[in-house]
Amino acid sequence: MKAALLLAAKGVGTTSPNPPVGAVLYQGDQLIGMGYHEKAGESHAERRAIQNAIEQGFANKLKDSVLYVTLEPCSSYGKTPPCTSAILEAGIGRVVYGMNDPDKRHRGRARAVLEAGGVKVQCGVYEEACKAFLRPWEYSIRTGLPWVTAKVACTLDSRMSRGKERWISCPESLKYAHELRLQSDAILTGGVTVRTDNPAFTIREPLSKMPICKQQPWRVILTRNRALLPNDAQIFTDAFADRTIIYEKVECLKDVLRELNERYGVIRLLLECGGNLLRQFLEQGLVQEWVQDIAPIIGGGTNLMIPGNFLPREIRLREVTVQQADVDYILRGILEASED
Amino acid sequence: MKAALLLAAKGVGTTSPNPPVGAVLYQGDQLIGMGYHEKAGESHAERRAIQNAIEQGFANKLKDSVLYVTLEPCSSYGKTPPCTSAILEAGIGRVVYGMNDPDKRHRGRARAVLEAGGVKVQCGVYEEACKAFLRPWEYSIRTGLPWVTAKVACTLDSRMSRGKERWISCPESLKYAHELRLQSDAILTGGVTVRTDNPAFTIREPLSKMPICKQQPWRVILTRNRALLPNDAQIFTDAFADRTIIYEKVECLKDVLRELNERYGVIRLLLECGGNLLRQFLEQGLVQEWVQDIAPIIGGGTNLMIPGNFLPREIRLREVTVQQADVDYILRGILEASED
Repeated sequence: MKAALLLAAKGVGTTSPNPPVGAVLYQGDQLIGMGYHEKAGESHAERRAIQNAIEQGFANKLKDSVLYVTLEPCSSYGKTPPCTSAILEAGIGRVVYGMNDPDKRHRGRARAVLEAGGVKVQCGVYEEACKAFLRPWEYSIRTGLPWVTAKVACTLDSRMSRGKERWISCPESLKYAHELRLQSDAILTGGVTVRTDNPAFTIREPLSKMPICKQQPWRVILTRNRALLPNDAQIFTDAFADRTIIYEKVECLKDVLRELNERYGVIRLLLECGGNLLRQFLEQGLVQEWVQDIAPIIGGGTNLMIPGNFLPREIRLREVTVQQADVDYILRGILEASED
Repeated sequence: MKAALLLAAKGVGTTSPNPPVGAVLYQGDQLIGMGYHEKAGESHAERRAIQNAIEQGFANKLKDSVLYVTLEPCSSYGKTPPCTSAILEAGIGRVVYGMNDPDKRHRGRARAVLEAGGVKVQCGVYEEACKAFLRPWEYSIRTGLPWVTAKVACTLDSRMSRGKERWISCPESLKYAHELRLQSDAILTGGVTVRTDNPAFTIREPLSKMPICKQQPWRVILTRNRALLPNDAQIFTDAFADRTIIYEKVECLKDVLRELNERYGVIRLLLECGGNLLRQFLEQGLVQEWVQDIAPIIGGGTNLMIPGNFLPREIRLREVTVQQADVDYILRGILEASED
């Protein structure tokens, strides 16, 4: 299941609105097939693992093999036929999966379908790890909203610099930031940031290789006045101009998030914005995950991370990790107060 | 020399105005004596290592033994006779030390004294580690000022809480804070902190055992008006009231620091103060080391770490380390802009 999870991770950022899923096939001790879901509309992990086994000349070993998959196999017709059918056709003897699919079309239905076909079924293996991995997608399924990761870069005294010439982050941290973009379906910011920084919000040099099927993330701009955004801003003029979405005079952030999920299939949204918009997201409980790039600098910055009055409510992070990125430190955690 | 450094570390916080020094004695491969300087006025590390060898019945092995010591042995009469004499009397054959003593009475003079007595001398072994270890003391010798470590505890958005009931730090971080106090000769704060928090500024539960010879650190209060400090404040009423020093209407922080060094022998000063005083210390380049306890909390705090306008000058930290203390993270580094 660990191997299946590693495979699943390859799909993060390209499968939305589907979940990233990984699968491995064993005949006895022999690994005969591997697969992961890469893109909505294309084969699911289970079919790809079966296909992979056939391609490797193991078609004769599929019978009574064991399939390990991170999520309950689908049992419904979507853009592709149900995986349960593929499993039955291949004659797989046992299916082990990490967790039930929370999607209302599934929710454990695979067990009955597979068992009726004579397949042994085991659910809940490595369940916590599988659930933690699929948390953004599960949150999105449950709430109809994207999982929002707020990303900030600041000094030790919480100042955020502005302007391209004055990045606070070190180059290694910037790579990490681009890795976050790679894992996201959309990046959201405010009109102020567009006017001040003229960001491209594209994935440039992430830490891992960018999959060919990865589209540049949607660039979602919230502005009070569309006319104030410069027409020559990168988001309007670069090769991905069709990936820019403008919302004007937004009254309800939640409505925007809901539409991004429903209309654009956004599951993972990266918030890269200034302090005022960040404050609104935090105050409304719309941030699920926090990534803070801490530069070992005191003073010299501009703009407080969260300006103005103190946030009235204290939000604690859990599952916190800190990793070094050259001279910077990147702190990451889940917001306890989030609906998750 | 590693062993000698570990021994030296036991003296941090109790030897001022002397440096913490460690020494080990070897006869061939056999460790025959160990010692460290514990308190000004008492034996230096070299004498204690020799004494230790004698106590262990190795008096006959002192001849032609090798002494490893973290700092050049003293060659002058202070509160105790010079260590070079003790080395010559013991018949030690070779002396290896980490670095020359920057004190103007020594500065390499030991070499000539020892060599004249037929002792082989090697200086500069493990020099960088020894220098880094003695940095606060060396800074103090050089500048006539205490080495200032600023200690702050804050949320991810740089808010510092106030009041005993509202510590931002987790209990494990508080132990670390008390360890810092243990290593300090004095703690400095502002009148505001005394009025608001009524701190004791004593060492309670440090991470390591508190040496018997450790005195509670001086509590240095900078206030605009002595009369505004409550008479029943802990610093005036507890068992260590004679360890409280008040400075009123301070015009020059550097003068205060100089006096603390000259009159009270303060080598290591811990700054545990509010944002306004911290800002003054930073702006005047009087902070050498930074310890930031980062609690994984967003919002809910009061008082910015550094309030008001942004510090005009950017100060970078070097030699940064981050360690976990339960849910908190403690970031520590040396200020690049410091005179060090």
